Amino acid sequence: MKKLDSTVLARRANQIKEELRQKLRKPYKQVIDLYSADTHTAGVKPLSFVRQVLAACLYPDLVKSNTLPVDVRQRAQSLLGECAGGSVGSYTATAGIPEIVHRISEFITKRDGGAPSDPENIYISPGSQWSLRNILKVLVNSQASPRTGVLTPWPCYPITNFTIKELGGVTVPYYLSEEQGWELQVEELHRALDSAKGLCNPVTLYVINPGNPAGYVQSRKTMQEVIRFASEKRLSLLADEVYQECVHGEKSEFLSYKRVLSEMGPPLSDTVELASFHSASKGFMGECGLRGGYVELVNLDPDVMKCIYKLFSTDSCAPVLSQIALDLMTNPPQPGDPSYPLYSEETQHIKTMMVHNVKRVFEVLNSLPGFSCQPVEGGGFAFPRLHLPPKAIQKAKEMEMKPDLFYCMRLLEEAGVLVQPGMENGPKEGTHHIRFCIITPEDTMEEMLSRLSSFHTQFMKDFS
Amino acid sequence: MKKLDSTVLARRANQIKEELRQKLRKPYKQVIDLYSADTHTAGVKPLSFVRQVLAACLYPDLVKSNTLPVDVRQRAQSLLGECAGGSVGSYTATAGIPEIVHRISEFITKRDGGAPSDPENIYISPGSQWSLRNILKVLVNSQASPRTGVLTPWPCYPITNFTIKELGGVTVPYYLSEEQGWELQVEELHRALDSAKGLCNPVTLYVINPGNPAGYVQSRKTMQEVIRFASEKRLSLLADEVYQECVHGEKSEFLSYKRVLSEMGPPLSDTVELASFHSASKGFMGECGLRGGYVELVNLDPDVMKCIYKLFSTDSCAPVLSQIALDLMTNPPQPGDPSYPLYSEETQHIKTMMVHNVKRVFEVLNSLPGFSCQPVEGGGFAFPRLHLPPKAIQKAKEMEMKPDLFYCMRLLEEAGVLVQPGMENGPKEGTHHIRFCIITPEDTMEEMLSRLSSFHTQFMKDFS
Repeated sequence: MKKLDSTVLARRANQIKEELRQKLRKPYKQVIDLYSADTHTAGVKPLSFVRQVLAACLYPDLVKSNTLPVDVRQRAQSLLGECAGGSVGSYTATAGIPEIVHRISEFITKRDGGAPSDPENIYISPGSQWSLRNILKVLVNSQASPRTGVLTPWPCYPITNFTIKELGGVTVPYYLSEEQGWELQVEELHRALDSAKGLCNPVTLYVINPGNPAGYVQSRKTMQEVIRFASEKRLSLLADEVYQECVHGEKSEFLSYKRVLSEMGPPLSDTVELASFHSASKGFMGECGLRGGYVELVNLDPDVMKCIYKLFSTDSCAPVLSQIALDLMTNPPQPGDPSYPLYSEETQHIKTMMVHNVKRVFEVLNSLPGFSCQPVEGGGFAFPRLHLPPKAIQKAKEMEMKPDLFYCMRLLEEAGVLVQPGMENGPKEGTHHIRFCIITPEDTMEEMLSRLSSFHTQFMKDFS
Repeated sequence: MKKLDSTVLARRANQIKEELRQKLRKPYKQVIDLYSADTHTAGVKPLSFVRQVLAACLYPDLVKSNTLPVDVRQRAQSLLGECAGGSVGSYTATAGIPEIVHRISEFITKRDGGAPSDPENIYISPGSQWSLRNILKVLVNSQASPRTGVLTPWPCYPITNFTIKELGGVTVPYYLSEEQGWELQVEELHRALDSAKGLCNPVTLYVINPGNPAGYVQSRKTMQEVIRFASEKRLSLLADEVYQECVHGEKSEFLSYKRVLSEMGPPLSDTVELASFHSASKGFMGECGLRGGYVELVNLDPDVMKCIYKLFSTDSCAPVLSQIALDLMTNPPQPGDPSYPLYSEETQHIKTMMVHNVKRVFEVLNSLPGFSCQPVEGGGFAFPRLHLPPKAIQKAKEMEMKPDLFYCMRLLEEAGVLVQPGMENGPKEGTHHIRFCIITPEDTMEEMLSRLSSFHTQFMKDFS
């Protein structure tokens, strides 16, 4: 039935923006775009320290002038000393500038309470999806029969599922428990694995923590169970941890899979294969446009590591400015540095904003009949459930749209709010969701919730 | 026999650089690195205008201050207006910022004497190799039997051959005529195609113009023959044109395949499928570290275009700063703009440098017994031939190296000059070459030629 996909939504949003520029009368003055986790688009300001260092690296005359704080200029100078020919325009080693890779490794060790990290196991790439695809290329045998399976959560980031399919693999969905705040339950992993019998050969388990788009933050206990499951079933683990800076729940804490695995000790810590992904696109920095992420690989066979090197080397290297952004993300200004007070104020501001937003989203949506929203403990999205009236579902069918896409199209048209229909996030039939970014200024979120509430109330009335 | 590949060279170069930092005595004070076409590493300065605009886009306070020329600030402001949320940290459309793609299309039309270009056919990507791989993904059917063939020149850029193999395709080499200054001869294309009979199913022809690493610049006549050949044999054309700014021969002129095809008129201009690649990494700009290139697609089936869109969309978008660099490359300052005089001086300087270098390389190498070098009419490399004495070939065999790698290792060790062995550039047995970048300051080139001459003279004596 799915004749129209959500590109119609993006196209219509662009048309509406153009119509607003041409002063066409609408019930709103501008479109609120919370479709993707693109925080700068959603109105969050870039971190000054990050932008200052990057600008000085690009245009080293700024290192000499006193336009910028002294620690910015020192940092830029020292980074330029690590670039070939002193220029961010030069290629770097395949895995990234060695000194930066080394400092990322130190950051990981510190973050993980001393669990050792080897710089040789770290690759910087143009974004975390990019490294994920390279790792999947090694894991998924496109010629295999039965085909290679990858356990992926539902809900999931749609591109990951597309990549698995493109490489000739099969996704084996495991469902997060919405009723339990999108908890990952190991019994469900067992069920999913059993469901694959005879259909494909599962080799790896993909987990997202903090959740995307489901805002669940995994506990140590859950992670230990997942690791034991992976070990027992001889699956490698792919841990998407790009939202590690975004934990909003008071009782939640981000623990990396690397740390939990390491602290479980041998034989697990020496055997379970793990790839952990991080990114400069998410969190406080939100620099999606720079295209930078890194992956740390643990317990991989040296021959596999050679293959991975070869795959990464086909693209020369990640953009040098994104490598520098990752360095700044993992080694931010420290107390006493001239840039520290502003840096601290800016990141604290984003933190407060996120906590405010997830609280308000929870309150407002759960007060609307036909909506239910789990607490967003972490990550960059809310993923509330829509309980649509049968008449709305019927109408969507007539329009050749999935019901959640139909809802989002109306929301865009009537209220100027752009969010993503849940259908893009996986195949669970019969439930409907919307996804929107929660990293946006408080007033934008309030305005969005107000428009959504009015729209939704009217929508439910129209189709009752 | 090939036990050691040229990574030993890069590793040893790094060790030597470290030894020099630790003041170990060597016959040279520093390594001259002309291994890749990385002009900033080779000592060429970035273009001021480019770096100023990029810095101002990153740190918009610079737009307000008067540190930078007024046209730089205006350009930055206008580019920021084209970024979502006014930030280079936001995602862009898959193909790139629409306004930039549009201006690139206008640049192409102007460059090609009015041959029409459609912005819908242009994709910006993180480098030209990256787009080439996506196009190859569509062309090469990894499941096909017999396998898909791609006609590739020898010498060629090694990564391209690796990519074809990785995708399950087969390279069908056609040899450029070294004796004729690396000319592409259509009879050789016929021979190559015949050689593939029964072995694979050739679907596309890859050409590099200006040559890389062979510095040949194709004439209109050659290109017309190539186009007719492609049409007759139902091959699509992949034209790597990243060195289009680098034409050194007085009588040579760069013509794009797009232009020649368009000017041949129907039916050819309406039917021959063409992908043309350009990059911000090469030419005057030399911004390899930003990772940016674009491809223009001509006469492709709409269904194939949809596939290509999907493949490009998996990486969200190219780095925004590299998109901006492409905009600046294709729309540089014009006479009358405050930045024009400096821009013009800097690009003229690089032009003069290249012309000087290729002249000197030709003179010096052809004066050395055991070397022969074709004129470098275009591109970023010299690719002279080595006529090695049998004793040197025997010695290389004992060291488990290809003879040209052996030569390059000795050159590095004894003279501190890092160049690439020709073996990396293809499979033509029995001939030996070295490859080095010619886009480097004149004094570096003179120093390199002087070291190479002394080393070579001694080497030939040692193995005579």
